[in-house]
Amino acid sequence: MYGLACRGSEGGARSILTEPFDAEEFRKHAHRMVDFIADYHRDIETFPVRSQVEPGYLKKLLPESAPDEPEALEDILNDVQSKIVPGITHWQSPNFFGYYPSNDSTAGFLGDMLSGGFGIVGFSWIASPAATELEMIVLDWLGKLLQLPNEFLSSGKGGGVIQGTASEAVLVVMLAARKRAVEKLTKDQGISEFEALGKLVAYTSDQAHSCVNKASQIAGISLENLRLIPTDASTNYSISPEILAKTVAADVRGGLVPFFLCGVVGSTSSAAVDPLSELGDICKEYGMWFHVDAAYAGNACICPEYRPHLNGVEKADSLNMNPHKWLLTNFDCSTLWVKDPTLLVAALSTNPVFLRNKQSDNNLVVDYKDWQIPLGRRFRSLKLWMVMRMYGSTGLRAYIRNHCNIAKHFEELLRTDSRFEIMAPRSFSLICFRLRPRANDPDKGYSLNAKLVEALNSDGNILITHTVLGGLYTIRLAIGGVHTKLQHVDAAWEVIKSQASNLLNE
Amino acid sequence: MYGLACRGSEGGARSILTEPFDAEEFRKHAHRMVDFIADYHRDIETFPVRSQVEPGYLKKLLPESAPDEPEALEDILNDVQSKIVPGITHWQSPNFFGYYPSNDSTAGFLGDMLSGGFGIVGFSWIASPAATELEMIVLDWLGKLLQLPNEFLSSGKGGGVIQGTASEAVLVVMLAARKRAVEKLTKDQGISEFEALGKLVAYTSDQAHSCVNKASQIAGISLENLRLIPTDASTNYSISPEILAKTVAADVRGGLVPFFLCGVVGSTSSAAVDPLSELGDICKEYGMWFHVDAAYAGNACICPEYRPHLNGVEKADSLNMNPHKWLLTNFDCSTLWVKDPTLLVAALSTNPVFLRNKQSDNNLVVDYKDWQIPLGRRFRSLKLWMVMRMYGSTGLRAYIRNHCNIAKHFEELLRTDSRFEIMAPRSFSLICFRLRPRANDPDKGYSLNAKLVEALNSDGNILITHTVLGGLYTIRLAIGGVHTKLQHVDAAWEVIKSQASNLLNE
Repeated sequence: MYGLACRGSEGGARSILTEPFDAEEFRKHAHRMVDFIADYHRDIETFPVRSQVEPGYLKKLLPESAPDEPEALEDILNDVQSKIVPGITHWQSPNFFGYYPSNDSTAGFLGDMLSGGFGIVGFSWIASPAATELEMIVLDWLGKLLQLPNEFLSSGKGGGVIQGTASEAVLVVMLAARKRAVEKLTKDQGISEFEALGKLVAYTSDQAHSCVNKASQIAGISLENLRLIPTDASTNYSISPEILAKTVAADVRGGLVPFFLCGVVGSTSSAAVDPLSELGDICKEYGMWFHVDAAYAGNACICPEYRPHLNGVEKADSLNMNPHKWLLTNFDCSTLWVKDPTLLVAALSTNPVFLRNKQSDNNLVVDYKDWQIPLGRRFRSLKLWMVMRMYGSTGLRAYIRNHCNIAKHFEELLRTDSRFEIMAPRSFSLICFRLRPRANDPDKGYSLNAKLVEALNSDGNILITHTVLGGLYTIRLAIGGVHTKLQHVDAAWEVIKSQASNLLNE
Repeated sequence: MYGLACRGSEGGARSILTEPFDAEEFRKHAHRMVDFIADYHRDIETFPVRSQVEPGYLKKLLPESAPDEPEALEDILNDVQSKIVPGITHWQSPNFFGYYPSNDSTAGFLGDMLSGGFGIVGFSWIASPAATELEMIVLDWLGKLLQLPNEFLSSGKGGGVIQGTASEAVLVVMLAARKRAVEKLTKDQGISEFEALGKLVAYTSDQAHSCVNKASQIAGISLENLRLIPTDASTNYSISPEILAKTVAADVRGGLVPFFLCGVVGSTSSAAVDPLSELGDICKEYGMWFHVDAAYAGNACICPEYRPHLNGVEKADSLNMNPHKWLLTNFDCSTLWVKDPTLLVAALSTNPVFLRNKQSDNNLVVDYKDWQIPLGRRFRSLKLWMVMRMYGSTGLRAYIRNHCNIAKHFEELLRTDSRFEIMAPRSFSLICFRLRPRANDPDKGYSLNAKLVEALNSDGNILITHTVLGGLYTIRLAIGGVHTKLQHVDAAWEVIKSQASNLLNE
């Protein structure tokens, strides 16, 4: 169809595609790709976890321009194996303990395939009704697993939506909060919207994810008007309601207008949990939008024993958590629930003539385009639906508990070796620790531990990352990979001990 | 692993998954899904193009909560077939002529599979070097196919990046432009950043995509300060440089500060093309950021005969086009090139301690997290790479030309029937037309043509959408589906003529 002579006809992945999408050519080639990916996962432990390449490595290996003529899949897969795989840091490796996990799974992958196969763009209900309706339903399902109040569900005037990432979730609710606050201020005080914007103050913990900072930059909230409330070990790095209340009161006395608080359930550095209920009371007192970012730890809250960490969420306006982190749903899938979606729509709606339709004009349907930054959107609810069905809530809870149990086991191992210390209490599957510094270490163990992390990552057996807690360099071991089992954490402990011995003997 | 007894062991897709990601279980189930998707595409013409369901249909068919216990893929696929497919509007159908196309392809799908299989999150170079480096390389490849000036490529201080959608591309460049303009104003005039923000004015055509409006809302540019320059048939709905220049000059005289212009190559309503070179001169005169949105028509510009539509792009600061529309790259893939990425980074960078690393700290690498709204990002360059390799630039050009030829053929058919009129000249693969209104039609053919569109979409043979041009209801027939061939457009013409006859005989 695309005007080329058919050059290969031996069939299979060695042939050249003769059509951009012929069902039988697709079938053959996609089967080949399934096997390639299955083999990759089967062999994943054979690769160094962190890529060992140097900056610019790939430019030397690939041509400077696209080829004129079509190439066969098998030739491309050879390049993938020899040129791409060495540049990959293997997030799906059972020995990847960096950042927070990002879960691939069989069910999530199947759902993504199906989404790609349908190839719809579900900006409005009319553009593919099933995409909007399934998303509403599965967000209700997941909201119920989290025991969210009915106000967050479609049965209670609220609703859920899938965003790409927590960054986008936080941004859209901040924009909704900004809109509400600016409108109130311009009306109450008769000032311009820019004067109003200049008065708005947002709050979050100094442990919050950098996406709150980024959302503020994008929303035009001056960084001077973003308060990162300092935390320390005395509250296990969670926000102190007293300090927050004092800060807010001082801002109000200074003529500023508190409009947004992002509370954290499971901070990026140490999985700290803010006291939601107390924060909610402060937000209510000042009329602030209360958002809860539970990107990582929210996943654990599908288990009744972890659900208390979400207590107080009933006082929030919105909540996000990322099933792509730790609930077996391939990236990207960040779920956001809001109590009043009309505020999102007010901040984000556009209604161009080329998208108008009877169902939207008559308010019979939800159009998710108005709940998000982009217009277009994939059919991402399919993967979340398949994950919930193929594992069942029993299976999902068992998955979370298994990782938390392994983390507890690692914590116990750490306690057996007095060279190490734990830097923050463990609540979920993240352990923060470090090598105790030598006496009179001028940088308090910073470079010692930085060297340990670099040594571990360089030899490729495991990947871990770091943070800083209370000014001290801290090693993070985040457990939650789809292939990670007890044996991998035991092996990680052995290499950590061994590298520590090497360093301490230097 | 996740704690369940293995309930099914007959193998294949009827069994229950015993692990969240076992390579062999994955292999079996993914092969089954490949066949499901191949069959869907094989049979795609058997479905009504536009879903025929009513709002709320799916809630009646699915349970209210997630299942406790795992279910088998085959049961889920039965539900997909019986409950989801009826709610799908089949964007990949050869008879889908609505909006603009959104191309699935074999190569694009394979690339997406591979991206999902690796499951990396490439926010920084270090997080998977191959993801960043391949993206830089394939954006250079595509930039060369578009004959972009070297300043837009990595070899010339510029560079490309994959965004999810054109909405995000336009937003990030507007944020970069805002940052630059606000800093200049606060410095030059000694005013606050909020006063500065209140002076900024953005410009685009009234034919521009609604995403420019949305980006302005998000960036805090008052809608009063977004000028939608009126266009009409006299310029084929492209911006008149004279009107733009006058509008800008009047704003400057009024104490406002022009900071951003979005020119359009291929408008959403009629694929109008703005005169880039003249617009670029105006932007230069006033120090405005000049962005070019070529989401749809930019794809055609890989063919030398369409490239003149991009003439003047050398005067732009940035350009986006969407390979997911018409270049066989599965959604989402919107490519953005900028001449000076440091301005993007200045507007969007955050540098939290938990992401710091040697390569980034030493400026040895690009970290795409600072070129986009989200932090996390998929390995989307794989699909664009596979598309360029598996079809070759020869194949991609043939693909575009084929659709444009079919569109020319449809235009000729239209001209044979005097009941119809063409509403705007055809430059690419979009045809804008309508039924001529009856004499003395009080609404000038609006309801007549709206009825025609509804009749066509309701019977399910084809899907088309509408717009309004110069106040007149206009039918859009956009050709560019991966399965669309000449015979489908011939058949569409027959049903259009037939429905028109029905309506006119009423």
